[in-house]
Amino acid sequence: MADLAIGVDFGGTKVLAAVVDVTSGKVLGTGKKRTSATDGPQELMKRIYATCEAAMSDAKVKIGNIKGIGVGIAGQVDAEQGLLVGTANLSRAVVNLPMAKQLEDRFHVPAAIRNDVQIAAVGEARFGAGRKIDDFLCVFVGTGIGGAIVTNGKLVPGAAGNAGELGHTTVQADGRICGCGARGHLEAYASRTAITAALLGELRRGRPSILRELMPDVDPAAPGQAAIRSGILKKAVEAKDPVTIEAIESAGEYLGRGLASVVNFLNPQRIILGGGVIEAVDLLFETAERVTRREALQHAGEAVEIVRAKLGDNSGVVGAAVIAAESAAAKSTKK
Amino acid sequence: MADLAIGVDFGGTKVLAAVVDVTSGKVLGTGKKRTSATDGPQELMKRIYATCEAAMSDAKVKIGNIKGIGVGIAGQVDAEQGLLVGTANLSRAVVNLPMAKQLEDRFHVPAAIRNDVQIAAVGEARFGAGRKIDDFLCVFVGTGIGGAIVTNGKLVPGAAGNAGELGHTTVQADGRICGCGARGHLEAYASRTAITAALLGELRRGRPSILRELMPDVDPAAPGQAAIRSGILKKAVEAKDPVTIEAIESAGEYLGRGLASVVNFLNPQRIILGGGVIEAVDLLFETAERVTRREALQHAGEAVEIVRAKLGDNSGVVGAAVIAAESAAAKSTKK
Repeated sequence: MADLAIGVDFGGTKVLAAVVDVTSGKVLGTGKKRTSATDGPQELMKRIYATCEAAMSDAKVKIGNIKGIGVGIAGQVDAEQGLLVGTANLSRAVVNLPMAKQLEDRFHVPAAIRNDVQIAAVGEARFGAGRKIDDFLCVFVGTGIGGAIVTNGKLVPGAAGNAGELGHTTVQADGRICGCGARGHLEAYASRTAITAALLGELRRGRPSILRELMPDVDPAAPGQAAIRSGILKKAVEAKDPVTIEAIESAGEYLGRGLASVVNFLNPQRIILGGGVIEAVDLLFETAERVTRREALQHAGEAVEIVRAKLGDNSGVVGAAVIAAESAAAKSTKK
Repeated sequence: MADLAIGVDFGGTKVLAAVVDVTSGKVLGTGKKRTSATDGPQELMKRIYATCEAAMSDAKVKIGNIKGIGVGIAGQVDAEQGLLVGTANLSRAVVNLPMAKQLEDRFHVPAAIRNDVQIAAVGEARFGAGRKIDDFLCVFVGTGIGGAIVTNGKLVPGAAGNAGELGHTTVQADGRICGCGARGHLEAYASRTAITAALLGELRRGRPSILRELMPDVDPAAPGQAAIRSGILKKAVEAKDPVTIEAIESAGEYLGRGLASVVNFLNPQRIILGGGVIEAVDLLFETAERVTRREALQHAGEAVEIVRAKLGDNSGVVGAAVIAAESAAAKSTKK
């Protein structure tokens, strides 16, 4: 009989739950809901309960067959206490939410919670591009740039649970202002947010671009525009739009410099690049890989493989399920 | 009876050997010799043999009481094969030198070889500022800037044995040219070499400075000047020399930015700063610490302790002895 666990990936726009066979990484059933930035703690937990139940129903399994539940969430997490400390994407009312305990009270199975990027790295480590690799780095390029580090075969959690924040390493002292408030961080140069800011700037100053046709509703001069979707960037690059190609190449140039720093510093066997923009836009991956090899020290640069993530949208739920099963096993040993 | 091993620290100007009690970290006897950049492999090994024998004689112990010999060297090392692959400080003739095997043939005890910064980190981990800390980073500021990473209680060797090269992370894309040939690396802003280049520049353009008195033989316009010694920098700062204070503060500012990047990326419990310039010049440590805290993300920045290395000049020989004893124990288990 397979070992089953539920993995939940709680993102800025949707929550995805899956029943996962943690011996094979196979997803047996899923449930999905939109999230809302105005949700308080109660609504948020209700959405998670509902997606877990939908996933079990889809997989045709009962809670009695589930070893545990794991949640990955974009935010600050206290893994030991099972707390969601806070998150930038959700209501400010969601602070120090005892997510693991509430899940355990509801479903009567052990529950665990982790940072979303760390669980995606666990998914890639166990069943994806990091299989059987002892020293690697996962980097996900999306709205922001997150990462996770595996050394000696183990995820590095970090003293405050935040290891892997590649987006907040400096590439340009006193450079662009980052979302975090500091200056010159990689995220301010190579994230979807940064690419959007650069492109809207070019549109404002009147440069011709196919983006006007691809996003007819966007007013580049209006404040607070959402980040341009990865699919739009992909189409514009395919149409050889010079403005978009420039912006992606610039992002790839900085991403490559940031990665070269980490190659020199960590000397990993492999870098796994994933996330929406990397998956959609080949030019970003290719530019980043070329620049990383150009900028890295010879021996470290030759040693590193740079590959794409393999599990796509499922890396989060698979990783969360793996964490859930491991955490359940650890708890039963302690008893 | 104490467990004794010999640790050898092979630097750019001297080679130091010590008989170390690896249960306490105590140094029982030492031997020292100058090194020469023109040494070929034979001369180099002879110097090591002689310092090992001098250390045993100083400690009044015989080789029969020694568990193993460990060597730390500033250069590229293949730890598994016991090879010195190459080093920038010594003759170009020293390539792929089977150092461990030659030591074993000579002394008939197991021998091991590692990068000098990694062994210093092992020394600090076992008996110095890293004791009982699972996640830390050692950074040594000297002629260059080296480092070593410990995660989950273990040294991270890196895929090519070069993890920890903080000196070659980017702080300023397209910035100053680094010794390695790339641009904008931390080492080009915050090493003794970088501080020297900045100070000689200020002297060339005629700014008044006490350095002229402290280094009467130095012609700031002559090519190939050696790096200014740490003791001179210390004296100039103590004399409140504005030019020197500016240069040290600038180095500290960049060092702090580089460290903040690593704090955000690795989220370590502790950063241990050591090396000649850090030990001599308090202003560098203080500036770097202040800027690290200013630039780091809040949670990671609050979590990290920034401390000075404890073992001073002995971190290398103590670490090398620890590695020697561990390596000897591993070899005897294999038999």
